[in-house]
Amino acid sequence: MAIFNGKKNNETELGFGSKNYKDSVRFLNIDGTVNVKRTGMGMANLDPYHWLTTIPFKKFIFITLGFYTIVNLFFASIYFTLCYNSFGGLESSKGSERFLDLVYFSSQTITTVGYGHVYPKEHLASLIASFESLFGLMLFAIVTGVLFGRFSRPKNSLLYSKNILLAPYKDMTALMFRVANTKQYELIENEANVVMTIKNPTTNKREFFSLPLELDKINFLALSWTIVHPIDEKSPLYGLSITDLQERDAEIIILIKGITDTFSQTVFSRQSYKASQFLDKRKFVPVKQDVNEKGRVIISLEDIHVFENV
Amino acid sequence: MAIFNGKKNNETELGFGSKNYKDSVRFLNIDGTVNVKRTGMGMANLDPYHWLTTIPFKKFIFITLGFYTIVNLFFASIYFTLCYNSFGGLESSKGSERFLDLVYFSSQTITTVGYGHVYPKEHLASLIASFESLFGLMLFAIVTGVLFGRFSRPKNSLLYSKNILLAPYKDMTALMFRVANTKQYELIENEANVVMTIKNPTTNKREFFSLPLELDKINFLALSWTIVHPIDEKSPLYGLSITDLQERDAEIIILIKGITDTFSQTVFSRQSYKASQFLDKRKFVPVKQDVNEKGRVIISLEDIHVFENV
Amino acid sequence: MAIFNGKKNNETELGFGSKNYKDSVRFLNIDGTVNVKRTGMGMANLDPYHWLTTIPFKKFIFITLGFYTIVNLFFASIYFTLCYNSFGGLESSKGSERFLDLVYFSSQTITTVGYGHVYPKEHLASLIASFESLFGLMLFAIVTGVLFGRFSRPKNSLLYSKNILLAPYKDMTALMFRVANTKQYELIENEANVVMTIKNPTTNKREFFSLPLELDKINFLALSWTIVHPIDEKSPLYGLSITDLQERDAEIIILIKGITDTFSQTVFSRQSYKASQFLDKRKFVPVKQDVNEKGRVIISLEDIHVFENV
Amino acid sequence: MAIFNGKKNNETELGFGSKNYKDSVRFLNIDGTVNVKRTGMGMANLDPYHWLTTIPFKKFIFITLGFYTIVNLFFASIYFTLCYNSFGGLESSKGSERFLDLVYFSSQTITTVGYGHVYPKEHLASLIASFESLFGLMLFAIVTGVLFGRFSRPKNSLLYSKNILLAPYKDMTALMFRVANTKQYELIENEANVVMTIKNPTTNKREFFSLPLELDKINFLALSWTIVHPIDEKSPLYGLSITDLQERDAEIIILIKGITDTFSQTVFSRQSYKASQFLDKRKFVPVKQDVNEKGRVIISLEDIHVFENV
Repeated sequence: MAIFNGKKNNETELGFGSKNYKDSVRFLNIDGTVNVKRTGMGMANLDPYHWLTTIPFKKFIFITLGFYTIVNLFFASIYFTLCYNSFGGLESSKGSERFLDLVYFSSQTITTVGYGHVYPKEHLASLIASFESLFGLMLFAIVTGVLFGRFSRPKNSLLYSKNILLAPYKDMTALMFRVANTKQYELIENEANVVMTIKNPTTNKREFFSLPLELDKINFLALSWTIVHPIDEKSPLYGLSITDLQERDAEIIILIKGITDTFSQTVFSRQSYKASQFLDKRKFVPVKQDVNEKGRVIISLEDIHVFENV
Repeated sequence: MAIFNGKKNNETELGFGSKNYKDSVRFLNIDGTVNVKRTGMGMANLDPYHWLTTIPFKKFIFITLGFYTIVNLFFASIYFTLCYNSFGGLESSKGSERFLDLVYFSSQTITTVGYGHVYPKEHLASLIASFESLFGLMLFAIVTGVLFGRFSRPKNSLLYSKNILLAPYKDMTALMFRVANTKQYELIENEANVVMTIKNPTTNKREFFSLPLELDKINFLALSWTIVHPIDEKSPLYGLSITDLQERDAEIIILIKGITDTFSQTVFSRQSYKASQFLDKRKFVPVKQDVNEKGRVIISLEDIHVFENV
Repeated sequence: MAIFNGKKNNETELGFGSKNYKDSVRFLNIDGTVNVKRTGMGMANLDPYHWLTTIPFKKFIFITLGFYTIVNLFFASIYFTLCYNSFGGLESSKGSERFLDLVYFSSQTITTVGYGHVYPKEHLASLIASFESLFGLMLFAIVTGVLFGRFSRPKNSLLYSKNILLAPYKDMTALMFRVANTKQYELIENEANVVMTIKNPTTNKREFFSLPLELDKINFLALSWTIVHPIDEKSPLYGLSITDLQERDAEIIILIKGITDTFSQTVFSRQSYKASQFLDKRKFVPVKQDVNEKGRVIISLEDIHVFENV
Repeated sequence: MAIFNGKKNNETELGFGSKNYKDSVRFLNIDGTVNVKRTGMGMANLDPYHWLTTIPFKKFIFITLGFYTIVNLFFASIYFTLCYNSFGGLESSKGSERFLDLVYFSSQTITTVGYGHVYPKEHLASLIASFESLFGLMLFAIVTGVLFGRFSRPKNSLLYSKNILLAPYKDMTALMFRVANTKQYELIENEANVVMTIKNPTTNKREFFSLPLELDKINFLALSWTIVHPIDEKSPLYGLSITDLQERDAEIIILIKGITDTFSQTVFSRQSYKASQFLDKRKFVPVKQDVNEKGRVIISLEDIHVFENV
């Protein structure tokens, strides 16, 4: 099952169109996200769940605290305005002090703590508090869902070598880079697909080529995986120097798909290399494999970046 | 892996049967749902979870509020009938006032707020309250699940061009429409399948034809995707005018499958075009792609509807 | 992607072995479950989550209520034994009355209601109550998970015709049965696989044959689906009468796979027909399709059982 | 869809590299985990959700209790330091007793029990308590998520025969082992893939060979499944004795993939056999199948280990 589905002659379609930009434009950002912003839908294209599960954790905490504060101020304002004298346990407080006490009462209601030293003693206050506690439970149901979504969503866990090398391979040259799994769980049934986008100097349009790999599937990503595209005569890289690649604004776009062994989640990892990350006349130094006293094979992930001159 | 699985000669089977109706009948509604109502199973075919996760949000909130109110009235009635004098903190209230106080007590119990200014002081009241709080926790467990289901379920996020065009393509004509992803996440491994249903004027039965596409897979739906069915001699559209299509009540049925990059969810999008949405002698205006000051490619989704005369 | 993976000559392997039993034995029960009980693993093969999510709802409620009662009696016993005089608000109650009050206190603690008219006033009672409330939260976390699992798990929603018919088909006979989707959501990308198991009178062993279908995939299960196995010379049913099938204890085993359109869940439906459910010289009456005043196509699911004499 | 994706000549790539170690090294541990430790990423490769859902249950409970205690001590310290006199209901307690009372208050706040016999009566205490209860709700949201993750994650439920046999098969020898499903649910669409790793005495490197199976798919894993690799001339095992296999440190690596029928979860099971677990001149005793009084087929899982001399 090919991930990148090509047309006959290795030309392929990534969904980026063929327009060529004046300046060099990345198709994938360094973090693997697609470098496109879609506008014109107003707020209709905002999915709050997706947003809350993908923003950084600090931002999520900040939003939660802010929202919690605002909601408590909102309910306190309602109680203060409509039910100033409707609470037992608050008889002695006045003005802004009464307002703060109502903020605390609101927080005790919305979190369902309900100490009860302050309590609603008239009908409207009881009614509003009754719906505030319902609102609180629904809010925390959402928070539970979002936190579960954040934790359980498939994480991209691959480390890519910093450079892509044009290294000797059999009696020719091959494009090579390495990936390793950084997580403590295993990735199985891994499939890699590599596409090059390059400017055609004749038509001045971008073209996309699927790069055939020496091996595009691997059962376990236990150690590191060197992904190899042999540059034979059929390769769109054939005869191009690194300077050519830079001039024609080449970008190598990688999509690797795997399955986590513990949750059977399909995980996609994307990465791109611009021509400036290419190096020639280098080859990767094999990743050192040691066996420790318990008989476990040990590798150091930092080793996947290491290359040497040929 | 074909989504629409055809028989030999491009004839295909959608599961709609071949009956022809007197009037024009849509097979897919405008919102992509299937225009069939199945009866004869009583309530057995109702799945409450599915129902609660797919109704509009406002309706869901309305149902929740209504149910919460009813449950509290129900428990208050029990307390009022069986345990009128069993509560501490309520000695001064009488009649309907006592009933309302018991409603508030019920809400404080079911949400587990439990202020405690009102509390059960005899056995039966304590026992019922004990099960009411258990009931409340289970109820909110269900609400949590439903809210999570609502938020996390795969959303249909494709925008389709308003019209389907019969546009020039190479030295012939092709049927073309465009789709774009409206969400902030990416759709990968997209596959499109297009089927036409049309009345056979000889047999007076509906026939279904799978329409081969110039390109039926795309890796990313980053920009817009123009889906093209070339009308060559083998096409069931060959030689038919828009008037013919309208007379024979043609409908183009589309199923697009993709995977969200953040949750690896498979999403299905369905759409149908009736013959009245066909336009000939038009072609789509390419969607404008700009690069903003941060180097991001910007497109406006509204552009996918725009066409021009040929 | 064949679900039933056969060997060359249509013989196939279901995983039931080839042993022939003295009496007639069903391979699939009427509810689609596999008629095998695996022993010899003690309790190691019990998965409590799986068990709690698949037992009938009434049983689940009964277990929850029972467990809640037992846990409260357990904690009340601890409080009664170790902390008889450690509670504020209970000074007046004695003996069994005190015990019951401690049961209510326990329930107010474990559900986190915490009215507070009874409260722990010494260290040990406070400490135990502190862990009881933690225990309660974890318990309800589990209940939430189980309820979500119960609601969200893919449900088998197919209705099968009561009988399997040997009906005229082109110029021969075909084995036919019908299925329909009983739920309000759609099933897409449906695939059917049909296997026959039959005793070989020569070897006295069971044999399994995959039955090729006229159409084994259908895009939508919008109306009803008639599944047809033409009995040509290659069919293992060729030349066999219903009496032969009964004598040789034949069973038709069906596995249908589909995807729900709302949650993209893969659902498997299994069914089996024994020879006693076969009828010959009958054919199915087409399911009536009406269009109601809103333009919706209406079918009645009960119609799928209806057949007529040939 | 091959799980183990081989190159042309049966040589395959498992992702373990070809390095040969001085001593015998297992590639898969006895519990099926990969025997590799990846270092060099600091804490960046730790996924707390994954960790909490995969540690043993006892350890999870221990961590929860420990964390709960620490958090309560932490909040009690804050209250003790900043709000010593800010609590109602605590006037009589002093020093360490006051500290313990604040620990209990903290636990009543974080679990949202909130009895209220102790309550914050000044602003700072009210404010801190307000955020502690929010923190508590978020904490229990996480606990709910982790418990759900623990319960719902796909479990490896296969039992493997203790030995792998070189047994007579047709007119040659075959490598055979057996698996059975230990759970009460069914596994469907099972696929097995078997790879052998063995030292090449000439190059002193490890080689990996995919072993073709007599049958690599099975529809149901209802009874037991004997997995058979016939040792014909093309087999990498051809002509090798058990002593040869031991000397060349052979390991048979197995990956079996199935789908649970109740949750449609894909489950992966891995296992490896070292040469010391090989036995020749033995064959498996068929697993006894009985039919009980209710017509159910009964098997005993322990039987899958049983073999006899040839």
